[in-house]
Amino acid sequence: MSKYRVYLTRTYDFCATHRLYNPAFSDAKNCEVFRECNNVNGHGHNYTLEVTVCGVPDAETGMIVDIWDLDGVVKDRLIQHVDHKNMNLDVAFLKDQIPTAEVMVKAFWNELDKPVADLKAAKLYRLRLLETKNNFAEYRGEN
Amino acid sequence: MSKYRVYLTRTYDFCATHRLYNPAFSDAKNCEVFRECNNVNGHGHNYTLEVTVCGVPDAETGMIVDIWDLDGVVKDRLIQHVDHKNMNLDVAFLKDQIPTAEVMVKAFWNELDKPVADLKAAKLYRLRLLETKNNFAEYRGEN
Amino acid sequence: MSKYRVYLTRTYDFCATHRLYNPAFSDAKNCEVFRECNNVNGHGHNYTLEVTVCGVPDAETGMIVDIWDLDGVVKDRLIQHVDHKNMNLDVAFLKDQIPTAEVMVKAFWNELDKPVADLKAAKLYRLRLLETKNNFAEYRGEN
Amino acid sequence: MSKYRVYLTRTYDFCATHRLYNPAFSDAKNCEVFRECNNVNGHGHNYTLEVTVCGVPDAETGMIVDIWDLDGVVKDRLIQHVDHKNMNLDVAFLKDQIPTAEVMVKAFWNELDKPVADLKAAKLYRLRLLETKNNFAEYRGEN
Amino acid sequence: MSKYRVYLTRTYDFCATHRLYNPAFSDAKNCEVFRECNNVNGHGHNYTLEVTVCGVPDAETGMIVDIWDLDGVVKDRLIQHVDHKNMNLDVAFLKDQIPTAEVMVKAFWNELDKPVADLKAAKLYRLRLLETKNNFAEYRGEN
Amino acid sequence: MSKYRVYLTRTYDFCATHRLYNPAFSDAKNCEVFRECNNVNGHGHNYTLEVTVCGVPDAETGMIVDIWDLDGVVKDRLIQHVDHKNMNLDVAFLKDQIPTAEVMVKAFWNELDKPVADLKAAKLYRLRLLETKNNFAEYRGEN
Repeated sequence: MSKYRVYLTRTYDFCATHRLYNPAFSDAKNCEVFRECNNVNGHGHNYTLEVTVCGVPDAETGMIVDIWDLDGVVKDRLIQHVDHKNMNLDVAFLKDQIPTAEVMVKAFWNELDKPVADLKAAKLYRLRLLETKNNFAEYRGEN
Repeated sequence: MSKYRVYLTRTYDFCATHRLYNPAFSDAKNCEVFRECNNVNGHGHNYTLEVTVCGVPDAETGMIVDIWDLDGVVKDRLIQHVDHKNMNLDVAFLKDQIPTAEVMVKAFWNELDKPVADLKAAKLYRLRLLETKNNFAEYRGEN
Repeated sequence: MSKYRVYLTRTYDFCATHRLYNPAFSDAKNCEVFRECNNVNGHGHNYTLEVTVCGVPDAETGMIVDIWDLDGVVKDRLIQHVDHKNMNLDVAFLKDQIPTAEVMVKAFWNELDKPVADLKAAKLYRLRLLETKNNFAEYRGEN
Repeated sequence: MSKYRVYLTRTYDFCATHRLYNPAFSDAKNCEVFRECNNVNGHGHNYTLEVTVCGVPDAETGMIVDIWDLDGVVKDRLIQHVDHKNMNLDVAFLKDQIPTAEVMVKAFWNELDKPVADLKAAKLYRLRLLETKNNFAEYRGEN
Repeated sequence: MSKYRVYLTRTYDFCATHRLYNPAFSDAKNCEVFRECNNVNGHGHNYTLEVTVCGVPDAETGMIVDIWDLDGVVKDRLIQHVDHKNMNLDVAFLKDQIPTAEVMVKAFWNELDKPVADLKAAKLYRLRLLETKNNFAEYRGEN
Repeated sequence: MSKYRVYLTRTYDFCATHRLYNPAFSDAKNCEVFRECNNVNGHGHNYTLEVTVCGVPDAETGMIVDIWDLDGVVKDRLIQHVDHKNMNLDVAFLKDQIPTAEVMVKAFWNELDKPVADLKAAKLYRLRLLETKNNFAEYRGEN
């Protein structure tokens, strides 16, 4: 089998609550900047995370990564910490951050990048976080 | 134009947070009954509400209801009160209720039934509340 | 095989243009009643039609209707007449009607009801016409 | 809390292979009746099953059925037997049947009806089996 | 907060009519080239436009762009001019162009590129125009 | 008309069955590596293939490729060979390969790359093969 680079994407769902506000801002400033997303008691979303890895299919299995291993990593390192949780209060790796989709997707990358690399066959290529059906953020490891 | 009965459905989206628990239960009982949905700091969803009205198309307009009037009623009476809100803390008509999809869809019916009837052309036939892509509740005005 | 009643739905897509207006109304009245849908040069939609038939599965085939026959009827009697067409100008069976989703779904029933009955195995149970992802009309043969 | 009847739907996915043919037919007859669905080596689908139960929300929990119990029943009695299986060869309760969507949805009802009733709070109201995005069958317990 | 580049996508829907034809072609040539899309009275679509901007999340807000400002620009400069309109007759910036998805997506870029850059925080990265569920065109600012 | 590069995507559906296993592995090894995907009698999917071509819109037609020609190539060279087929037994160009999504998407590229180039206007840019709603593989011509 010749060698060629393929991108494989798997998706994971979770339900979470968040509130957008900056504790350094006044209430008025928070309202002006974050509008309805600043509701004091929060609001929530059904999030979908698309995890894309790239690699070369293994000659003996036809797979670029053992997908059950990949699922295990994503669930263990990420999904169990955010599913049915409050992004402002319950998640250690989001502490003191404003949980916009942009910030969340980068924080998720930090949690997954090394464990996926440790699977040895594939590397993390892109994370896409869908917040509503009209809004999503994407991170590709770029500074 | 002959008279015939048609069902028209319009959908409305909102984002909200909720927590399932019964204050009369012990913490242990709440955990046992509501599991991950009992997370103290809540979780959330992108809800979609399908509002179905039925009626006879008007001979002059071909419409069973003025859809801009219907949208106005649903947004004014319902959506503005639940969008970007906390179902346990922010919504007067859900006070002291456990905000499962089943309970919410019935409470929504109570808010919409009479105002829709007041539009005179159509009547409320069915509400369907989609909570996740794998879970929805439906109420049809039945006791 | 015991006898039991099943409902089978097949969906068909078509792209069409329409304009909502009543020639008996003044321009001002048309604008007031139909708003943006009254644009003189029209607007359009990707429509989806769900055709539901009901019947008893045949003991020898497990099917309530030959689906290739059903597809043939729906395409021949309906879809070829509305796909890539103008609902106000190109469709004989919509002549002099205001092509709202409510009116269209009933007119479609008139075209399909008898030919489906002629297939002998199943009868037309319901038509659902999706006009946008937030708007659909349904007809069930009721007066 | 007043009593009112609600319909709750949960969806379950499974991937399966099937072939449509009647061993009592000649090869030519099978080809004529089932066309491409008669391919000797089979073809397959991502099926989605919508399970709808109805009942009255419990005054203490707001739920018409314990959804984790319901999920347990559906997975234990049904999904584990059909997911990643061949509908012609691997499923005891489909033996000697032609696995059209119509036949499958009725056979699934037979597996789920009593176990759901045994949950005591809700009863099975409707099963909808989606075979492709353009084809689904529905059974409501009617003979 | 460290600096990193994120891609944020927001989607916008509009309904429009169009007809594909080249006035320099004969009727026969138009029919041959554009087939059913050349229907004299037009046809239409529910279009969805995905607008992707890229930028670095702001340290104080966690956002790469004020999404309400972005929505304002897209609606003001683009959506209000195409929603419920005829692409051949009603849109100044499409005048004398053949409104295929490819041509429309580039013309939309011309309308949005500078106003998005004027928001100062983010820049336009990609536009994707979905015409039907089976057809979409994408422009990334490349010549 | 100025010259600019656009990406056009069209999608095609097919239903197929497959089994993941390596004949060089023991049964135990196949079970360990491919798990439920190793079911002896196979399982199946509704696959969707997104074909993306890139090119410069033609000044006279506004199209980067004649889409009816493109559809013809994809159906003739690919879809008719895989739709309602068994990926392990029925497809010449997959012979002796393990039909994972990664392997299939590369094999599909081999079938389409030259015929699309022969259309002269556009070139194949990317293939994306969706296997379930939570799993897809993508190939972009990279070694």
